[in-house]
Amino acid sequence: MPRKKAFSVSLGNTEFITRTMRTLIIFAICLILYGECKLLPKGNHHGNWITNEISTRKTHHAGPPDHTKLVAMARYVLHNSNWASIATISVLPAIEGFPFSNVKSIVDGSLANSTGIPYFYVSPLDFTARDLMKNSRATVLVTLEETRFCENQKYDPEDPRCTRLMLSGKMKKIKDGSPEYEFAKAALFERHPAMATWPTDHDWFITKMKIAQIAMVDWFGGAKYIPVKDYLAYNYTGTEMLQHYRQGHHVAL
Amino acid sequence: MPRKKAFSVSLGNTEFITRTMRTLIIFAICLILYGECKLLPKGNHHGNWITNEISTRKTHHAGPPDHTKLVAMARYVLHNSNWASIATISVLPAIEGFPFSNVKSIVDGSLANSTGIPYFYVSPLDFTARDLMKNSRATVLVTLEETRFCENQKYDPEDPRCTRLMLSGKMKKIKDGSPEYEFAKAALFERHPAMATWPTDHDWFITKMKIAQIAMVDWFGGAKYIPVKDYLAYNYTGTEMLQHYRQGHHVAL
Repeated sequence: MPRKKAFSVSLGNTEFITRTMRTLIIFAICLILYGECKLLPKGNHHGNWITNEISTRKTHHAGPPDHTKLVAMARYVLHNSNWASIATISVLPAIEGFPFSNVKSIVDGSLANSTGIPYFYVSPLDFTARDLMKNSRATVLVTLEETRFCENQKYDPEDPRCTRLMLSGKMKKIKDGSPEYEFAKAALFERHPAMATWPTDHDWFITKMKIAQIAMVDWFGGAKYIPVKDYLAYNYTGTEMLQHYRQGHHVAL
Repeated sequence: MPRKKAFSVSLGNTEFITRTMRTLIIFAICLILYGECKLLPKGNHHGNWITNEISTRKTHHAGPPDHTKLVAMARYVLHNSNWASIATISVLPAIEGFPFSNVKSIVDGSLANSTGIPYFYVSPLDFTARDLMKNSRATVLVTLEETRFCENQKYDPEDPRCTRLMLSGKMKKIKDGSPEYEFAKAALFERHPAMATWPTDHDWFITKMKIAQIAMVDWFGGAKYIPVKDYLAYNYTGTEMLQHYRQGHHVAL
């Protein structure tokens, strides 16, 4: 069988060019379509839940503070996390009294005003609210794994340098219409725009944690405990998060 | 201005063909290079903890199964997650009896052999092990948020379509040197290569969960409960995870 002509030699052959071009066009279209598919927001609207664009899952350019700055690190991890796992004592019949864990979207204040207090938008239909009605004790867990810092650093999720923060305390409902309620609701809806359209018949309310203990793993040598007073008093606006949103989002600020 | 020639008309023009082809080749090369850059591993080693290359944080091409396939979905979410939050009852003096939550790196079997059972590499120095010594009840939470599926779909972390799985039960230590111990250890070290170099003085052992209840949120309309028997009996090798590792990793399989 004759060998195929080398690419450079065959440039003058119109038939071959046409065929090669067709292949390349198809290839390029495939690649474009593949890219587009991943970028296009799928119009997948169901019920009253709408989709949400969250770019805070990407690591911020600023990155976390030095690991020795415990208070700064604790506040950074919470402010830069969009969701927490929240541990409660279950009231489900099959596992009554067992510790349970659920995913909750959170904020600790507006993008420009971090408070260090985690706020939640809760429905009585959800596991967490039902557990809390019987026992208000909880632990809120957030990790730098969420910001992609650990992946970028090639840290295993359990590596102690992949900082994780555990806030333990009692969960408290915030009074409807109070200044704190308005502040927290605006902050939740700012960071999680989809919340504004979540089903209205779910009787959403807002809760926060009254923090009793702050544990953090952020380096080798075991967990650190941070005084709640120092943590709450720390002056931190979370500017890097605000800038991040301003750059990547079209959020009215 | 003259209208551009239609593509079919210009096929005979060799110069135009060559130019178009060149553009397409450059474009294709750019796209290929862009893809390659994202795949390149970075080296970053520290102390006794070595870094780990985890590409499972990216969404797999296959994606999760249809949300109506409850057992398939539950097994997919666990097998495709690298870490879980694990809820236990705390023994820490300041929060004794509170539910606590911690990050643990996990596997449910080797890349090629999913079992549906979460396995953990645990040190008695860690919160979780100390809690479990007093009370072996726990809940293991994993979410598609980990695989980037939710982000790609523009789902809020709490959106019910961002599937989350909660396995509740009792944690059990696996006997050193038993066949299950060897299987689980090999699987843990395969998925989390850094574990092989974690400090030897930490008295690591391996635990698994004896699952009592499986709850899952994977669509609108409230949580679903999956019979443990059906879940464990489901024939699933997690092939997409194996292929994913083979493509992006240089792991000896």
